[in-house]
Amino acid sequence: MSLSESILPVPGVRLGIAAAGINYPDRDDLLVIELAEGASCAGVFTRNAFCAAPVELARQHLQKTVPRYLLVNSGNANAGTGRQGFQAAVQSCEALAALVGCEVTQVLPFSTGVIGEHLPVERLLKALPDALAQLDGAAWPVAAGAIMTTDTRAKMVSRQFEVEGVAVTVTGIAKGAGMIRPDMATMLAYLATDLKVEPGLLQSCLQQALEPSFNSISVDGDTSTNDACILMASGVSSLAPVTDAGSAAYRKLSEAVREVCMYLAREIIRDGEGATKLVQIQVEQAADEQEARTVAYTIAHSPLVKTALFAADPNWGRILAAVGRAGLHELAIEQVEIWLDDVCIVRDGGRAASYTEAAGQQVMDRPEFTIGVKLGRGQARARVLTCDLSYDYVKINAEYRT
Amino acid sequence: MSLSESILPVPGVRLGIAAAGINYPDRDDLLVIELAEGASCAGVFTRNAFCAAPVELARQHLQKTVPRYLLVNSGNANAGTGRQGFQAAVQSCEALAALVGCEVTQVLPFSTGVIGEHLPVERLLKALPDALAQLDGAAWPVAAGAIMTTDTRAKMVSRQFEVEGVAVTVTGIAKGAGMIRPDMATMLAYLATDLKVEPGLLQSCLQQALEPSFNSISVDGDTSTNDACILMASGVSSLAPVTDAGSAAYRKLSEAVREVCMYLAREIIRDGEGATKLVQIQVEQAADEQEARTVAYTIAHSPLVKTALFAADPNWGRILAAVGRAGLHELAIEQVEIWLDDVCIVRDGGRAASYTEAAGQQVMDRPEFTIGVKLGRGQARARVLTCDLSYDYVKINAEYRT
Repeated sequence: MSLSESILPVPGVRLGIAAAGINYPDRDDLLVIELAEGASCAGVFTRNAFCAAPVELARQHLQKTVPRYLLVNSGNANAGTGRQGFQAAVQSCEALAALVGCEVTQVLPFSTGVIGEHLPVERLLKALPDALAQLDGAAWPVAAGAIMTTDTRAKMVSRQFEVEGVAVTVTGIAKGAGMIRPDMATMLAYLATDLKVEPGLLQSCLQQALEPSFNSISVDGDTSTNDACILMASGVSSLAPVTDAGSAAYRKLSEAVREVCMYLAREIIRDGEGATKLVQIQVEQAADEQEARTVAYTIAHSPLVKTALFAADPNWGRILAAVGRAGLHELAIEQVEIWLDDVCIVRDGGRAASYTEAAGQQVMDRPEFTIGVKLGRGQARARVLTCDLSYDYVKINAEYRT
Repeated sequence: MSLSESILPVPGVRLGIAAAGINYPDRDDLLVIELAEGASCAGVFTRNAFCAAPVELARQHLQKTVPRYLLVNSGNANAGTGRQGFQAAVQSCEALAALVGCEVTQVLPFSTGVIGEHLPVERLLKALPDALAQLDGAAWPVAAGAIMTTDTRAKMVSRQFEVEGVAVTVTGIAKGAGMIRPDMATMLAYLATDLKVEPGLLQSCLQQALEPSFNSISVDGDTSTNDACILMASGVSSLAPVTDAGSAAYRKLSEAVREVCMYLAREIIRDGEGATKLVQIQVEQAADEQEARTVAYTIAHSPLVKTALFAADPNWGRILAAVGRAGLHELAIEQVEIWLDDVCIVRDGGRAASYTEAAGQQVMDRPEFTIGVKLGRGQARARVLTCDLSYDYVKINAEYRT
């Protein structure tokens, strides 16, 4: 029942890719996912008000019917493109629907890449037959590659479990390295299982998995216009449909989906633009979860903390300053403790008596560690994964369009 | 009545500096400001919960009496230093009070520099007589140099005006280049005038000047533990005491103090760590000032916007994404306009029909320009000054303690 990096096909789901030349020359940038008839599908999208045209259209289509096809392009976000961008998304769905013989509402469009450029629809349409010709249940790894933008590696994972002796598979892929603070939605991520799951339950299953995974990571605090996370249930399994939240099948599926989301979210931070460190911010003893999250994100987004992480400099005063400016009402600083892994750095309002620079340095030199904050105000907690701010972050984002 | 960069002494105020070797070798790092008897003094301090020991003590002293001396050191923030840090601040004030023969509560302490290191009090005390020996009304420029940390240049300005034919001077100095988002307080800044001003009015005069100046700038969103802004009125002017908010003297003083604060705040951003651009974010047509400020700061703090500014890349999709994720309730994106100086880039939910990349590039190439956002929701507005995020920002902050 453990995670597997050898990627398993999901019965009832096929994937096909193609090189449409939308923005990147000579690489795959188009993905079509085909879902068996009778499947169900759950989705969560960005809450950015300037959400992309395909996000808007995918939301509409998902409300009307169950999708048969997902159409994803990288290299162009089709966001900030107004009415023309919306038409481009509609046109793409219409073309795919015509080729495969389904309703246009049964196609969900997704785009990722540069914001504000018009989608070169003709190039996309021309490559559709190629992608369809390649549809294959084993194509998850190449699919994960086709949806990358500034990612340096494909992100994918599988998880299998058994229900009544029958194997069930959950496989997921994701992309994302910058403009990452999904928070109330997620990045581009596609998960599928072969179970048959009642749509409402499938949505719950996805929601519960998002909070500790995609909704608890941040590279740079910038929530994208195009975030989306989709969970498909092909329904081709021989098992009975999952219709009860109390059933063993639902419990196991939820656990698997959560683990797959946690793995993929962690992979996104590991591949954060220019990242050299993976840092968990763990805030405990907060009065409520909201303030725990506020403190965690204030630390995670502080450019001063992030550059100190890059330098592996235990300049903990910057962490303390971030906690202090998080806006907590009547924070009693003498109750606050700050830790680097198992090294206490701040206690009683200042540097812990036991703290040594050498001990702090030892933790900061690790590629992965935890910044722990105990607020001494209650029982609530929050956990956020983040990365450092390096020269390469500036380089990647200063040169992105050139 | 215009600003003058030739710095004018303020009658009733003398300044003395010394090299105490607190952190930097071979440079002045200690400043004593002496204020005439019968003066008044207004102050505003950081709201960071982890405020520094000297901030806490200065607040206490200022409530009890009118200060005769301000004692400032650079190189060490004396923040996050607990009880020992507080004692160090008390000890410094006691030593100065003993040397000059005033009450300990008549000394206001200030520190700026690395957080979390203990203040080397002995070195500071040893240098106090030097600083006192140098007290001089013309020492504002060297004083501005002595309080610098990562600043690359001293920040100072004077302003004179006349009341009933008598010249009145306002001179101010400030320091700050990183950990700059004063917002609810300010950076280290010291202003003085020779007018006699009733204490309550002096505080109002300072408060009204802060909002559009120090409270509307951000380098990196990190509010310091040590921010403070002090306005002194020596009272040695031959003019009658200012006791009426409706008087011409108060109106002229307020205008001068505001202009001095605006100038110094702008200088702080121009000297922002690694900054190559000075960018004004101007948000208009907001439903209320709070949402205008939220949108302005969301843009100002976006690492993606800031790296695009550094690259002089008119990648306006990042500005649009920042507006979209600012959390405004039911933002109608088709009402939003985004401008670079006089070039409209976004209108009707997407790229403005009139926009050309060349026009956007022309603005982005300027060393100073304005990002304008019209929300189409009301009459409120906000203005924030910020800078870009460059390699040098990372370099400066990754290497700060080494």
